[in-house]
Amino acid sequence: MRTMIHGAAAKIQATGGVRTLAFDANTPLHLSSGETLTPLTIAFESYGALNAERSNAVLICHGLTGDQFVASPNPITGRPAWWPRIVGPGRPIDTNRFYVVCANVLGGSMGTTGPASIAPDGAPHGLRFPPINVADMVRAQSMLIEALDIESLFLVMGPGFGGMQALQWASAYPKRVFACATVASGARQTAAAMALSELSRQAIMADPDWRGGGYLAHGVRPAKGMGVARTASQVGNLAEPALRDAFSAAAAKERFALASQLDEAGRQNSAFVDRFDANSYLYLSRAGDAFDLGADFGGNLSNAFSHSATRHCVFSFASDWRYPPEEGRRVARALLAAGADAAFIEIDSDKGHDAHLDEDAQFEAALTGFVDAAATARGLSLQAGTA
Amino acid sequence: MRTMIHGAAAKIQATGGVRTLAFDANTPLHLSSGETLTPLTIAFESYGALNAERSNAVLICHGLTGDQFVASPNPITGRPAWWPRIVGPGRPIDTNRFYVVCANVLGGSMGTTGPASIAPDGAPHGLRFPPINVADMVRAQSMLIEALDIESLFLVMGPGFGGMQALQWASAYPKRVFACATVASGARQTAAAMALSELSRQAIMADPDWRGGGYLAHGVRPAKGMGVARTASQVGNLAEPALRDAFSAAAAKERFALASQLDEAGRQNSAFVDRFDANSYLYLSRAGDAFDLGADFGGNLSNAFSHSATRHCVFSFASDWRYPPEEGRRVARALLAAGADAAFIEIDSDKGHDAHLDEDAQFEAALTGFVDAAATARGLSLQAGTA
Repeated sequence: MRTMIHGAAAKIQATGGVRTLAFDANTPLHLSSGETLTPLTIAFESYGALNAERSNAVLICHGLTGDQFVASPNPITGRPAWWPRIVGPGRPIDTNRFYVVCANVLGGSMGTTGPASIAPDGAPHGLRFPPINVADMVRAQSMLIEALDIESLFLVMGPGFGGMQALQWASAYPKRVFACATVASGARQTAAAMALSELSRQAIMADPDWRGGGYLAHGVRPAKGMGVARTASQVGNLAEPALRDAFSAAAAKERFALASQLDEAGRQNSAFVDRFDANSYLYLSRAGDAFDLGADFGGNLSNAFSHSATRHCVFSFASDWRYPPEEGRRVARALLAAGADAAFIEIDSDKGHDAHLDEDAQFEAALTGFVDAAATARGLSLQAGTA
Repeated sequence: MRTMIHGAAAKIQATGGVRTLAFDANTPLHLSSGETLTPLTIAFESYGALNAERSNAVLICHGLTGDQFVASPNPITGRPAWWPRIVGPGRPIDTNRFYVVCANVLGGSMGTTGPASIAPDGAPHGLRFPPINVADMVRAQSMLIEALDIESLFLVMGPGFGGMQALQWASAYPKRVFACATVASGARQTAAAMALSELSRQAIMADPDWRGGGYLAHGVRPAKGMGVARTASQVGNLAEPALRDAFSAAAAKERFALASQLDEAGRQNSAFVDRFDANSYLYLSRAGDAFDLGADFGGNLSNAFSHSATRHCVFSFASDWRYPPEEGRRVARALLAAGADAAFIEIDSDKGHDAHLDEDAQFEAALTGFVDAAATARGLSLQAGTA
């Protein structure tokens, strides 16, 4: 794999199962704020093989509290792949056919430069980390894709926060995105989602162990505040009936306990509290709340997609109140108004936002159809490297 | 005012501007759980005069973090009346015409028996306070109304959590409720509202100063956790565009601070953090989450209102995502299916749940029309005591 492009020096390394691409100090990331960030390191995982034409690359953007291990276990946390039904051999994103890249997001804490990374002065950035937005995250991914010598992605795709990045990709780099799949996501967040993440941030910052953001220097972590953020993620992902059942059962059984009715899921998810950097959560969730692609284009979302040849498919799930179908329809309307090739698909499901992670025949069939049709249009064969 | 009825001994007292009705130990409150609570004290405020027929009484049920001072300043916190546009001389609930009662809810902390009250053993109940539900709160109010020798209420009305109590009143005591106004509320909570309150509870319980619920004995308060609960209330009350503006402005101006962009409102609202008992918040919010009037009737909300002659009006506000219009419509459909006299009114507003507190000509006009028509049907004159 080539790692030099356009004169940018980048070096691939692997430590403890985490592969990183490190740009040198002369290749900074230019942020939307006007600041620059250097040195930039991007951690990523890949699956499958790039074909000779370098035309079968798929970029998966992960969700707010996710990581790059979309189709393989995370070697640090031991957690299984987070989207194995969707990405893998014989799956809708078939790793026998496509070269799949998933990068830890800018500002994350699984190897990519973020608030917990060591700054040039030898101490963690912490709250000195510059403000970042979704456009910055996508710009960093774009540097990775360039460094991998991939001129144009066959597909960009992501769920939730990752879907926002996919839409930002399609808007910012229309010629480099052949197809875009937005899954359980939108071009901005609902009030309910913003409220949940603001509460999570407040709970983290209210935790004495946050230490004004300087917990790393004190060898502590705001675990209780992060527990609240974990709860926000859990409750936000459940459909209304499931949530009501959980609370009713809890109300009947017990009075109050810090270990809530969601605790079983919580234990499985303790890697989040233990491993996810709290300041990273603050930066990423704030960026998600601030994302409003239409607002960046004078309040007209269609303008974000002018003159684009990218094929779009927007998937929403019926009971997802965090990223509701009405937002998916709004995105699809804007795409169609921009003259884009766009479909909107609402999947019947009673599993809320979590539906995109669960077994769902409707979703998998529709996604497979969209991907196969796009692959045919791009002239991709059924096997990588044989186009 | 008589304070003895049906042999129940109850004594009215006033301390520091808070008026209470104290039932004696032989008059316990029977809880839905099967437990009994004694002694029971209910703090309440009243406005206007009861007419000779005792037929012009209005019961206002306050919201989750509210109090009984609906139309006059709270003498403890110094906060102004919370609904002065709706209740007062010449207002839609005209205190020149009606006798208005507002009671601090069971489990509250403004004088009514709750977790912060002193138990028979001389220590605060704390988490030893029994689990309570909305039916229990209404049963306690019913004891107050009986003690005041009011056989039948002209109107029961409340916003949000108070609207749930109003519906519970109409369901449990149909012959004692002539009219019912449900404002920005519903017969159950949405997933988003449940999620916000679960996060608030988690944040309170994660505060080291909560001390496992025993903070009162330690002379401390979980102020940081309560700050998160206060934020939940603030963000839940704002409409989506206002929330987005607040977060965008914050993202542009500052990085992170415990004092959030909502802090100005927060300072005005610091009485909540300083004065509202944290355990009370846990009990009340849990009761709100568990409320599902239809579920109590085999999943058919209509059955909650069978054979009722109560006149209903259900008011929803267009941009209220915490108690959305679709829930108001669901309640109205169930009432109509039960054969009740019911109207549903959706008020145009961009102010979210807060709209019910703000100046709103549509709301005030519609409410005035509903109340006046009901008063005419009940044979009430324009002045109290002259029917």
